[in-house]
Amino acid sequence: MSDARHDSERTPRAENIRWHAHDVTRGEREQLLGQRGRLLWLTGLSGSGKSTVAVALDAKLNALGRASYLLDGDNIRYGLCDDLGFAPEDRQEHVRRVGEVGRLFVDAGVLTVAAFISPYRADRDRIRERMKPGDFVEVYISTPLEVCEGRDPKGLYVKARAGQIGEFTGISAPYEAPISAELTLDTSVLSVEEAVDAIVAFLQPDWV
Amino acid sequence: MSDARHDSERTPRAENIRWHAHDVTRGEREQLLGQRGRLLWLTGLSGSGKSTVAVALDAKLNALGRASYLLDGDNIRYGLCDDLGFAPEDRQEHVRRVGEVGRLFVDAGVLTVAAFISPYRADRDRIRERMKPGDFVEVYISTPLEVCEGRDPKGLYVKARAGQIGEFTGISAPYEAPISAELTLDTSVLSVEEAVDAIVAFLQPDWV
Repeated sequence: MSDARHDSERTPRAENIRWHAHDVTRGEREQLLGQRGRLLWLTGLSGSGKSTVAVALDAKLNALGRASYLLDGDNIRYGLCDDLGFAPEDRQEHVRRVGEVGRLFVDAGVLTVAAFISPYRADRDRIRERMKPGDFVEVYISTPLEVCEGRDPKGLYVKARAGQIGEFTGISAPYEAPISAELTLDTSVLSVEEAVDAIVAFLQPDWV
Repeated sequence: MSDARHDSERTPRAENIRWHAHDVTRGEREQLLGQRGRLLWLTGLSGSGKSTVAVALDAKLNALGRASYLLDGDNIRYGLCDDLGFAPEDRQEHVRRVGEVGRLFVDAGVLTVAAFISPYRADRDRIRERMKPGDFVEVYISTPLEVCEGRDPKGLYVKARAGQIGEFTGISAPYEAPISAELTLDTSVLSVEEAVDAIVAFLQPDWV
């Protein structure tokens, strides 16, 4: 037992007679930024284009003057999650932590884009359940496996087919497609720009 | 082995001929918000007033039109860190994760206020070393132990003295004061408002 649980204690306000600070509400943060915070969760197979769409979406939001942020392997794997490996329970914890970080960013009023394979429905649903209705926007990048495999930018599918990579999503490990994603976008049919525009159109009613 | 390490792969840009998205830089995010992202790390004993100052600072920044966010026990302990207990290694991991989340928020351009006892110098220094110079602003809330103990808002010091709480920082566990904090503020001398003003004065040269 120790005092860590008491980190959040605050000196009673009565001690600060002339100071009337209050906890800033999410609404106040959002009002300042002129937008509603959302967690845009892009899920899909390796090679589906979700990271490309995520980068382009972030750029588009920034160009539109929106406070946005991108969570992806580049800034998560070697930072917050660098203690995690690739065992199933580690991957679950990885998705959980990204979801929790996403919750914080949404609470800060930021349009937060997350791009992770996140193959398990239960892991994604758990994030949704932890947030207020509408905060979690599941964007299923539904590009068919054969297209993803055809793109195979780094030859991972070839290696997976050859048995050189175990538990590769879509080949030797399951991908559980969303059942009720807010948006479903297939980058074998849509251009990246069209996919981004569809997401922006979904968001625009939020903005002032 | 699995494909999680490939989450960050992006479909080659060459596939997106008319789309010239780029990774949004930190500078572009900061330009949009008109400020520099910083992690304001408030460290000090239980009862030192760090959480009170943190809440008031966040409120002041918001009132000044600054995009800010507060990381404290309230939104971290029962979310991102709800898998961690109070053993020394868990407390270290707790501080590490908050530091990593702070890094992400700073990268997003946000003025991020963190208030945690964080008693170990090495844990705080590790966060500083992971960030660019100037990004990590250590604010030592240096209120003397006897004052903190005198406040004892929830009777924790009484319990610690009675041996009912083990490893209580300042009583039965060490607190390693910062050696070169950017700011040192003693709330037995300064009012909360004065402490907040000192931090704001430190930050204001950043703003446009």
